[in-house]
Amino acid sequence: MASETAPPSRAAPRKLTGKKQEIDDFIDQFDTFLFDCDGVLWQGDVLLPKVVETLEMLRSRGKKLVFVTNNSTKSREKYSKKFEKFGIPVKVDEIFGSAYSTAVAISRVYQIPKGKRVFVIGEEGIEEELDAEGIPHFGGTQPLGFPDDEVAEHCGPDPTVWAVVTGLDRKINYAKLAMAFGFLQDPEVHFFATNFDSTFPTHGKLLPGAGSCSAPLTFMTGRGPTTFGKPSQAMMESIERKYTLDKSKACMVGDRLNTDIKFGIKGGLKGTLAVLTGVSKEHEILEAGEAGEGPDVYLDCLGDLLG
Amino acid sequence: MASETAPPSRAAPRKLTGKKQEIDDFIDQFDTFLFDCDGVLWQGDVLLPKVVETLEMLRSRGKKLVFVTNNSTKSREKYSKKFEKFGIPVKVDEIFGSAYSTAVAISRVYQIPKGKRVFVIGEEGIEEELDAEGIPHFGGTQPLGFPDDEVAEHCGPDPTVWAVVTGLDRKINYAKLAMAFGFLQDPEVHFFATNFDSTFPTHGKLLPGAGSCSAPLTFMTGRGPTTFGKPSQAMMESIERKYTLDKSKACMVGDRLNTDIKFGIKGGLKGTLAVLTGVSKEHEILEAGEAGEGPDVYLDCLGDLLG
Repeated sequence: MASETAPPSRAAPRKLTGKKQEIDDFIDQFDTFLFDCDGVLWQGDVLLPKVVETLEMLRSRGKKLVFVTNNSTKSREKYSKKFEKFGIPVKVDEIFGSAYSTAVAISRVYQIPKGKRVFVIGEEGIEEELDAEGIPHFGGTQPLGFPDDEVAEHCGPDPTVWAVVTGLDRKINYAKLAMAFGFLQDPEVHFFATNFDSTFPTHGKLLPGAGSCSAPLTFMTGRGPTTFGKPSQAMMESIERKYTLDKSKACMVGDRLNTDIKFGIKGGLKGTLAVLTGVSKEHEILEAGEAGEGPDVYLDCLGDLLG
Repeated sequence: MASETAPPSRAAPRKLTGKKQEIDDFIDQFDTFLFDCDGVLWQGDVLLPKVVETLEMLRSRGKKLVFVTNNSTKSREKYSKKFEKFGIPVKVDEIFGSAYSTAVAISRVYQIPKGKRVFVIGEEGIEEELDAEGIPHFGGTQPLGFPDDEVAEHCGPDPTVWAVVTGLDRKINYAKLAMAFGFLQDPEVHFFATNFDSTFPTHGKLLPGAGSCSAPLTFMTGRGPTTFGKPSQAMMESIERKYTLDKSKACMVGDRLNTDIKFGIKGGLKGTLAVLTGVSKEHEILEAGEAGEGPDVYLDCLGDLLG
């Protein structure tokens, strides 16, 4: 079933063959490329072939590049170090992460009232982006201030808590879940998630994703979080505002159908490009195409854009 | 909506008034009482009023008592110590816990093959009941044998793993979830849960229940666990076999509509009795009654059965 905002009919995903003219025609449609990172530019700690040269080629042709990641464990600042390590030139401002997206929404769209704070289930990336926006927070990587097994005495409603923010937290534990559950029993407390990825691909394995940290809270409270990562259009709106994006000249590049490609299609971008170096497999891309949910084009790897 | 196995129409829940004749008439319908424990006999560490005397009165009238608990953190042996502490006489064999129910199903109904083992997300109660049934297991309270942050190198399919068993685990962490997720990616691996309680009432607070430990796995895998605690009828079938229960003369007593009372109604027991000393409130009981999902009768507290 095509999503509501998708064009009424979408052509089957087409594999770019590598002919120079075909690739040029494809690239020339766009002035901006939004890139997912893990599974597109690199796989964990391994840079994918010809990525540096491909990005350089796009820049040399005047394309604007934005790196859009659901990874909330690193702030944009820290994430830029990863680009540096791989020898990919990048400015912090070209990076748009789900933790940043969430922090910006809390401070500028929702406008958290003075004197209020947010409880974090997540890692440093969220904390640093909240700090950058001046949003008071607790939980996260900070000690709760009491032994874990005394959580029953410390959890419950707290009038200073305005929201619970969840992201991937590889130090998740029962006490944090209990605290968050205690706060969320008050329906006035917002429930936000940086993203809803079910899995987190690492070292060729699938580990639990950010969604696994909000899932217990949804199960307990019956409340689903408002999410700010792909495929949430809250993220697309933030990107549009920040980069004065012209959707009719923008292309989303990603490896995941249910986050990246869905994000581009729902957002009404001119184009979507999938690569086979990440989560979604070729047969899944073709199947999604039959349902009107596939990318416009796909490639074995991003470097194939060099022809 | 009445559940499929409920009688076609059910009368509204009736509050027993305390008149001796009315109470006697109610009690005389049954030869067996199944009791939930927390919220019925005690609240956390506090014994409820006149519980000892009420149980004694029922025993003196020849009633068989079975204590049916979803608490999987303690084995039946350990759970009996809690009764002793409160001065409630009990035999281990009168206690039927969800961890025991799960272990018995694995060994006797599913008959786990020789050489196979189960991975546990849970506490000692599950481990001790698995040990008692001779079922090899790992995980649970045992160290995983590697640093938590190296889980990506150690997780994935394992041909020796036959099932993942989840229960309440107050030491839940990312590594355990990642291991379980790795095993469950093989569709041949069974996914069991001792119970599916959303919350765990403690010290007057609602903490995350056992279901919050399986919810992330369900979210990631799209698979729901087979459960062996209330309201699962797998537990009722085990109780029927073990105690040669005559359902037409049995009454379920509990404080929770969506576990205890549902368990009794779905199981086709002659009666259900709710008490207001636990999770479900009077207005919820009356509302459930309108939907055909309420108890037959209810009381402020169990001790009121003394008249």
